[in-house]
Amino acid sequence: MNEFFNVPKIAYEGANSENMFAFRHYNPEEEICGKPMKEHLKFAMSWWHTLCGDGTDMFGIGTADKTFGGKTPMEVAKNKVLAGFEFMHKLGIEYFCFHDKDLAPEGNSLQEFQQNLDEIVPLIKEQMEKYHIKCLWGTANLFNHPRYTHGAGTTCNADVYCYAAAQIKKTIDITLELGGMGYVFWGGREGYETLLNTDMGFELDNMAYLMEMAVDYARGKGYKGDFYIEPKPKEPTKHQYDFDASTVLAFLRKYGLEKDFKLNIEANHATLSAHTFQHELRVARINGAFGSIDANQGDPLLGWDTDQFPTNVYDAALAMYEVLKNGGFTNGGLNFDAKVRRASHTYEDLFLAYIAGMDTFALGLKIADKMIKDGRIDAFAKNRYASFDMGIGEKIKNKQTDLCALSDYALSLGSVADEASGRQEYLESILNDIMFGK
Amino acid sequence: MNEFFNVPKIAYEGANSENMFAFRHYNPEEEICGKPMKEHLKFAMSWWHTLCGDGTDMFGIGTADKTFGGKTPMEVAKNKVLAGFEFMHKLGIEYFCFHDKDLAPEGNSLQEFQQNLDEIVPLIKEQMEKYHIKCLWGTANLFNHPRYTHGAGTTCNADVYCYAAAQIKKTIDITLELGGMGYVFWGGREGYETLLNTDMGFELDNMAYLMEMAVDYARGKGYKGDFYIEPKPKEPTKHQYDFDASTVLAFLRKYGLEKDFKLNIEANHATLSAHTFQHELRVARINGAFGSIDANQGDPLLGWDTDQFPTNVYDAALAMYEVLKNGGFTNGGLNFDAKVRRASHTYEDLFLAYIAGMDTFALGLKIADKMIKDGRIDAFAKNRYASFDMGIGEKIKNKQTDLCALSDYALSLGSVADEASGRQEYLESILNDIMFGK
Amino acid sequence: MNEFFNVPKIAYEGANSENMFAFRHYNPEEEICGKPMKEHLKFAMSWWHTLCGDGTDMFGIGTADKTFGGKTPMEVAKNKVLAGFEFMHKLGIEYFCFHDKDLAPEGNSLQEFQQNLDEIVPLIKEQMEKYHIKCLWGTANLFNHPRYTHGAGTTCNADVYCYAAAQIKKTIDITLELGGMGYVFWGGREGYETLLNTDMGFELDNMAYLMEMAVDYARGKGYKGDFYIEPKPKEPTKHQYDFDASTVLAFLRKYGLEKDFKLNIEANHATLSAHTFQHELRVARINGAFGSIDANQGDPLLGWDTDQFPTNVYDAALAMYEVLKNGGFTNGGLNFDAKVRRASHTYEDLFLAYIAGMDTFALGLKIADKMIKDGRIDAFAKNRYASFDMGIGEKIKNKQTDLCALSDYALSLGSVADEASGRQEYLESILNDIMFGK
Amino acid sequence: MNEFFNVPKIAYEGANSENMFAFRHYNPEEEICGKPMKEHLKFAMSWWHTLCGDGTDMFGIGTADKTFGGKTPMEVAKNKVLAGFEFMHKLGIEYFCFHDKDLAPEGNSLQEFQQNLDEIVPLIKEQMEKYHIKCLWGTANLFNHPRYTHGAGTTCNADVYCYAAAQIKKTIDITLELGGMGYVFWGGREGYETLLNTDMGFELDNMAYLMEMAVDYARGKGYKGDFYIEPKPKEPTKHQYDFDASTVLAFLRKYGLEKDFKLNIEANHATLSAHTFQHELRVARINGAFGSIDANQGDPLLGWDTDQFPTNVYDAALAMYEVLKNGGFTNGGLNFDAKVRRASHTYEDLFLAYIAGMDTFALGLKIADKMIKDGRIDAFAKNRYASFDMGIGEKIKNKQTDLCALSDYALSLGSVADEASGRQEYLESILNDIMFGK
Ligand SMILES: [Co+2]
Ligand SMILES: [Co+2]
Ligand SMILES: [Co+2]
Ligand SMILES: [Co+2]
Ligand SMILES: [Co+2]
Ligand SMILES: [Co+2]
Ligand SMILES: [Co+2]
Ligand SMILES: [Co+2]
Repeated sequence: MNEFFNVPKIAYEGANSENMFAFRHYNPEEEICGKPMKEHLKFAMSWWHTLCGDGTDMFGIGTADKTFGGKTPMEVAKNKVLAGFEFMHKLGIEYFCFHDKDLAPEGNSLQEFQQNLDEIVPLIKEQMEKYHIKCLWGTANLFNHPRYTHGAGTTCNADVYCYAAAQIKKTIDITLELGGMGYVFWGGREGYETLLNTDMGFELDNMAYLMEMAVDYARGKGYKGDFYIEPKPKEPTKHQYDFDASTVLAFLRKYGLEKDFKLNIEANHATLSAHTFQHELRVARINGAFGSIDANQGDPLLGWDTDQFPTNVYDAALAMYEVLKNGGFTNGGLNFDAKVRRASHTYEDLFLAYIAGMDTFALGLKIADKMIKDGRIDAFAKNRYASFDMGIGEKIKNKQTDLCALSDYALSLGSVADEASGRQEYLESILNDIMFGK
Repeated sequence: MNEFFNVPKIAYEGANSENMFAFRHYNPEEEICGKPMKEHLKFAMSWWHTLCGDGTDMFGIGTADKTFGGKTPMEVAKNKVLAGFEFMHKLGIEYFCFHDKDLAPEGNSLQEFQQNLDEIVPLIKEQMEKYHIKCLWGTANLFNHPRYTHGAGTTCNADVYCYAAAQIKKTIDITLELGGMGYVFWGGREGYETLLNTDMGFELDNMAYLMEMAVDYARGKGYKGDFYIEPKPKEPTKHQYDFDASTVLAFLRKYGLEKDFKLNIEANHATLSAHTFQHELRVARINGAFGSIDANQGDPLLGWDTDQFPTNVYDAALAMYEVLKNGGFTNGGLNFDAKVRRASHTYEDLFLAYIAGMDTFALGLKIADKMIKDGRIDAFAKNRYASFDMGIGEKIKNKQTDLCALSDYALSLGSVADEASGRQEYLESILNDIMFGK
Repeated sequence: MNEFFNVPKIAYEGANSENMFAFRHYNPEEEICGKPMKEHLKFAMSWWHTLCGDGTDMFGIGTADKTFGGKTPMEVAKNKVLAGFEFMHKLGIEYFCFHDKDLAPEGNSLQEFQQNLDEIVPLIKEQMEKYHIKCLWGTANLFNHPRYTHGAGTTCNADVYCYAAAQIKKTIDITLELGGMGYVFWGGREGYETLLNTDMGFELDNMAYLMEMAVDYARGKGYKGDFYIEPKPKEPTKHQYDFDASTVLAFLRKYGLEKDFKLNIEANHATLSAHTFQHELRVARINGAFGSIDANQGDPLLGWDTDQFPTNVYDAALAMYEVLKNGGFTNGGLNFDAKVRRASHTYEDLFLAYIAGMDTFALGLKIADKMIKDGRIDAFAKNRYASFDMGIGEKIKNKQTDLCALSDYALSLGSVADEASGRQEYLESILNDIMFGK
Repeated sequence: MNEFFNVPKIAYEGANSENMFAFRHYNPEEEICGKPMKEHLKFAMSWWHTLCGDGTDMFGIGTADKTFGGKTPMEVAKNKVLAGFEFMHKLGIEYFCFHDKDLAPEGNSLQEFQQNLDEIVPLIKEQMEKYHIKCLWGTANLFNHPRYTHGAGTTCNADVYCYAAAQIKKTIDITLELGGMGYVFWGGREGYETLLNTDMGFELDNMAYLMEMAVDYARGKGYKGDFYIEPKPKEPTKHQYDFDASTVLAFLRKYGLEKDFKLNIEANHATLSAHTFQHELRVARINGAFGSIDANQGDPLLGWDTDQFPTNVYDAALAMYEVLKNGGFTNGGLNFDAKVRRASHTYEDLFLAYIAGMDTFALGLKIADKMIKDGRIDAFAKNRYASFDMGIGEKIKNKQTDLCALSDYALSLGSVADEASGRQEYLESILNDIMFGK
């Protein structure tokens, strides 16, 4: 078996290394807060961007070849498996994520698609064993084909809905077969282009029912993992129903799905919905819905999903702060739902980009850990609310009062000011000191 | 009693009038779909912008005088009452909305504030009777004073929380006294500036508890009206907790508040949250949470709450379409939460702006009614989902199937395409025909 | 020769027609302000979106077939010519715009590409004569092929720069051959992805030199038409050098290109750069740089170039107001650089979308004409500046004073206020009256 | 004389200090690249935000007291001088910037305003000498007063134009008196609210003439410093004429003002105009128009000018990279046009915020210097364009060719690809290594 990538296994060489094919910050076995870095970070390769994405954009054709020497669609698919595991192995990545369609050609019918999948899956399992690599989560691609023009779970065509159900069922089967502990519903084309032709209520009812059926099916097969919804506010549709974390929580609560579903938060989708990455993680966390992460970054000045490799250490640090505060991942992990820029079209760039992303999150983890150990920021935040630990504040916190009592209390006070400063600038400077100090 | 405004009573003169002090489209008694226009539209004056706003912005002091000849704060407050009712009367507006602080000076203590309010409220009641004008809703101003720097229901200071409770209690009392059937929680400073100093979960718990106590108090006094939350995504805080309609629904469902609370949808807040006005109304409607409307418009190219008078007829038409589909308002109405531009600083501009807004919504109502009567758009939308009225589609709609059955069905089909066109361009041209046809 | 489109010739049937395949507002021969509507509007078909675009987006493959029955690339190209002229003829469109690559397949070399073009161009000329249809402008596609990954005029590769020059030369030849009076430089990938690898000054020098050479070449062949730059702020690159009208003016003035170049203003690019369509037209107009228009619309809530068919009559009216104030088009026209939504994938939708767009601009023209005839808005605007028609104001207007004189004058005044109202709300209501009145 | 601030003189204590009232990164005398840090950075205090800003926002009154114990307006003004110099001295800031109106009360007439200024200026001069502090630049406040509602240089009222001229003249006098080497035209309300009432061409002609007169006046008095325009895209007006660096360059070139004017680039205005801070600095630099910097930061998710203290080290590093590449400042410097958050209302916060900002730019300077010394990024960027150093590329660079020659050359090549990768991800990881390595 030949190598696909003329790149060495990537090793940690420390912060001063100028070797481009080395980690400078990610040291997988280094212990941070009681666990090796790799267990904190649980990096995953995205099958689609990494093994399928060729740099096509709306203004130009692909710049990279991702056939991996295959001549037929099935040969290409098989070579992707081999290339993908070589890639993960060389980077020391222990998880992968996939869409059904990433793994095998659709052929000309659903049957053919499923047969193709059945031929590929054993090869994947074999490679998983060989390299000790695991499946983080699977999902079905319910947006690429023209049949999904109007959505899948929210389509206006009942046959298309059934087709989607069939893809989901099969992808659940595969995910379970591969031992995956996550199944993702990513919004795809679940949304609308214009309200003039859209019955939003009906579409959402159907979406919820599809999820309910998927849960029933998977639980019936003994699945103990999580289901995830990945919020995104727009693109491809004008309005994606899974706008942001809060929108998804409203949906889950409406349909009683909140016990089976958690959130897969993507950094770029967060900023597209006008939230910070940390905000979306915080919302997930305080609602007990933190699940998994799609680690990438957007350009705050651009209005589409650029899915860039994450290199902003501030964002990574604040994200890992939320992860640590959550007690780490349970079934989730850090999936690089990121693609190299169209101009970064070589195999080398794929490695360089993953190194950039992994080093960024390694820095983020170390800084988040330092933030918590340093304690100044947490202590300040905690102390702000001290007035709720006693007297009337404590009654409020414990829900042991009423409007009249509070009003009487307020009337009894001479005057009420709030002398406390929020100290935002100082807190930001502490973060810089932690990041850039020794 | 002298007049404050040297402007005549505004009458309807028809579409061809060039009299700037006349309605050209709003004909209050004209029947549309079985009701006079004024009952469909239920216009309300916002006390704050109309009687208090002086054109101050972040780069300049006020350009308009809103003392109405008063020399002391109480005299000003009383003159505002008289001026306000003259204003409403001359425009034929039958409702008003207020913050506690709009009505009377705060003085130097909570007691003084309440006494001032107690002095003003009877004058308002007298004027209400005189002019047959009603209170649409009231709310407490919990954001202007420095004590609310860190929020009110989400403050970090327990005393401030109590002060807010006292203001809410008093404002509920006044709202009930005035016969108002709505009480609004507008986000104010309920949000955060930086997550570095914020316990989001605790703050939201406190917010929910304050609402719960307010409901208990008002219901205890026999209040049958609605409570509203008015979503807004940002400004003044970096993140406002009531980001958009869906976010508020998630919150209400989490804390079991959804039976007492509906939404007050503001057009400008909708676009600030990257949604259309119609979208937010649709979300409210399909969730049974449509309550009231703050009728204004933002500038889609600006990133702050410009609160402009509504003059875009497309937006008004699509909003009124949602209102009609909802069966009209119950306790809510159309409150002009809109302010004249800083350069429109004369009393005449106040009238011209309200005329512009009322005529815009009158056009919107007429067009929405025509859209429904025309029927082409509704029929197209309905017909799109026809496949769910029979066979497998009907089973899906009735939740009488499962994933395996759907998958089997999909496998039994030769291939599944979706040949239907969404016809967006055509539907938009129909709307134009309805708007600009005869 | 068979028809490609099973759609009748589109006729004007008036505002009340419910025939979807008829114009309801565009009546080509109807005279407006001394000229038939079709001469005011000079509609053009965009070859690329209309004959080549298949609905592909970043999340899915094409939904429409644009092979027009062709089996080989050249057959497809020829059928596109025939289909295109049938399409224009049926819609009564008298102009078209093209990229070189739209017309013929690139083959495997520049030579082959040029030969293919040479085979197609005579067919186009033949059809132009047959249908009395003209070429509005041509342009070279310098962004689709991977060679243009780093730009064309701003590439970092000298060979690529030459390749671009060769395409431009050939496209100028074709444009002249077809009698076109416009040649467009559209930004393509002229911009940067990251400043970390970019020499912005050098790239812009090269871009300017390429334009200079193109002008020299075309003028040398006797070309009397215009060159256009089409501003766009972003997409595909993170930053497009031709950000907006003002940015392009700065560039043209720096390199002395302003006498040969005018602007091709696209509505969607205007809003992407945070300007209104009218703003960009106004900037072009007051700088003597108004050239041509790409008529489409974006979604103000989305951050990418949706290139929707224009259906917003406000925008069309204010655009046509600028066109009329400019004295109409000289060499330019209204090119529908617009694509049907991915879900509007049928041939019928193509017609319906063009009808929607043409009717929208017909309404816009009629309203703009009414605005000017009505005169109230223009008179108000003119009157605002009356103080510059006399005294010190006149001296300022005529540049006959200095800072000391103005300061002395100001000191001589008791106090200086500005009592005038901007009357924005009223002006907006006049516009509505003109649009929605009788 | 008592102290106003109960805060010690701020000293450098090194990166590990946890003393909040110490610099951790800014070491004024430390030499970087041949100059002490303080000469590279030339920090300036903004009189307005620092000594006048009280935390007022559109939703609430001030939270900070900036009377500094003064009882009358003039006493307040004098105390501000004393407090300001104490503040600068304690922080080791050697420059300040001011608006005329920041320094003294306007009183009831222009005469009174000028008398008040004449009383304050000597006090400032005295303090400047005492503390060895200099004036970086001055500007006139032409936006706060209602008379400037419609603009100053672009007003529709000739008297207002003259009033503005008088303020500019006086402020130039003061700036010269104080030895300032910069005079800033900041856009204020130079822009429009609606094109319906605006003659954009006339307004811009007037603006240019005012600048021309100001230059003539100041040069006549022997002024050798720079004039600056500070771009800003929006706020307070809907459209500010000085949208961004390129827009200002187009304006300067149109009116022949480019030799006297440079740009004052503000970070927050850059992002409001959808550009990075570095982009605006780069545009200024390659056009020979780099002048001075307003050092602050916006929130990329908010759409208004938050003017936050700069704490993002990436942005500071890339800004200082441009400054170093420009050979440093000439007459300009780093003015903190930044305000503490409304919740950071104490005097301590003022110091903490300046420390945060100064430390951030100190880090930025050190990192920029390391970037240049490291050389990898610069070398990569330079090497990308190597093909323009020889053969056909050299001819292009030297403008010694023409379109036909380039076309012939392209035809002579077999095929033209571009194999080079842009390496964006790798370059970003180098930047991280430089920032976070040892
Ligand atoms: Co993702
Ligand atoms: Co994404
Ligand atoms: Co509101
Ligand atoms: Co608002
Ligand atoms: Co275009
Ligand atoms: Co476009
Ligand atoms: Co500034
Ligand atoms: Co600013």
